[in-house]
Amino acid sequence: MNESTIFELTVSSFQRGLRNLIQILEKAESHAEAKKFPFENLLNARLFPDQFPLTKQIQIACDTAKLCASRISGKDAPKHDDTESNLEELKHRIQSVLQYLETYQESDFKSVFEIKVSQPRWEGNYLTGFEYLTHYAIPNFYFHVTTAYAILRHNGVEVGKKDYLGEMPFKK
Amino acid sequence: MNESTIFELTVSSFQRGLRNLIQILEKAESHAEAKKFPFENLLNARLFPDQFPLTKQIQIACDTAKLCASRISGKDAPKHDDTESNLEELKHRIQSVLQYLETYQESDFKSVFEIKVSQPRWEGNYLTGFEYLTHYAIPNFYFHVTTAYAILRHNGVEVGKKDYLGEMPFKK
Repeated sequence: MNESTIFELTVSSFQRGLRNLIQILEKAESHAEAKKFPFENLLNARLFPDQFPLTKQIQIACDTAKLCASRISGKDAPKHDDTESNLEELKHRIQSVLQYLETYQESDFKSVFEIKVSQPRWEGNYLTGFEYLTHYAIPNFYFHVTTAYAILRHNGVEVGKKDYLGEMPFKK
Repeated sequence: MNESTIFELTVSSFQRGLRNLIQILEKAESHAEAKKFPFENLLNARLFPDQFPLTKQIQIACDTAKLCASRISGKDAPKHDDTESNLEELKHRIQSVLQYLETYQESDFKSVFEIKVSQPRWEGNYLTGFEYLTHYAIPNFYFHVTTAYAILRHNGVEVGKKDYLGEMPFKK
C-alpha cells in the first residue's frame, strides 16, 4: 500500500508534470509563430538577470524527476549533458525522462524509508529516501516547472492553471 | 504507516512551505526598506496584467493548504475573507493556517483513499482524497508559493532556492 503511494507521488506525478510541461512548451511555440519570432528567443528568458533561464529550468525539472526516482530506489539513472538549444531537443530531453520513469514499478520503492540519499556537497550527511522526496524532490520539481511556466507567462504566452495541473481524473 | 506518509506529505510539507513563505515575505520587507519604498507597493505586483497579484497568490497558497487538510480528512476548515492589505495581515493569515494545521494528527487521514472530495463547480464529479492531494493540492500549493516567490524575485528581492526549500533535516 505504501509503495503504491510513493509511486503515485513521485513517478506518476512527475510524468503528469512533464507531460503538461510539453504542452506548455507547445503553446509557447504557437505563441512565437503567431507573433513571428523564433521560439529560441524564449530559451534565455528569465525573470531577473541572475536567475536561471527557461532552458535551465526545464533541465533541472527533468533532473529532479529522474534523480528522485533513482536515488530513492537505488536504481541507476541515465546521464544528460545539458546541451539542448531548441524546442525539439528540449522535448526530446523531457521524453527521455518520461521513458526512464516508465521503467519503474511500485516495488522499486519498498526501501524508501530506510535508503540513505547523499551527495558529495552534503559533506557526509544524508537524508532517508522519504525525507529526500518530501523535503527536496517534490517541492523542487514543482518549483522548476512553475518557474518555466512563469517565465513564459511573463513573456505573453497564454497559459493558465489548467495547463499546469492537467486534467483531473474525475469520477461520477 | 500510510497515514503518517499522508500527514508528512500534506500537513508537515504545507507547514514548512508556509513558514518559508513568511521568511521570503520578510526578505521582501527588508528589500523595500533598503530601497525606501512601502512594502505594500509589492502587493499588486504580477508577472503579466491578467495574472493574480502577490496578495492573491499568498491567499490561494493558504487556502490550498487549509482546504486540502480539511477535504481529505472530512474535518471543518476556518473561513478567511481575503481582506489582507498589508504585510502584517498577510503574515497573520499564514499564521492562522499554520495554527489550523497544528490541530491535525496522522489518524485524521485514515480514510484518504476512500473519502470523496467534490466541489459545486465539478457538477457531481468527485476525486478520492488521495487523488485530490496528488493531482491538485500538492502541485497547486507549490505553484502559488513559487509564483509568489517569482513575483518578488522579478522585483529584485534577493531570495534563492534555499529560502523556498528551507533547511534539510540532514543526519550524520
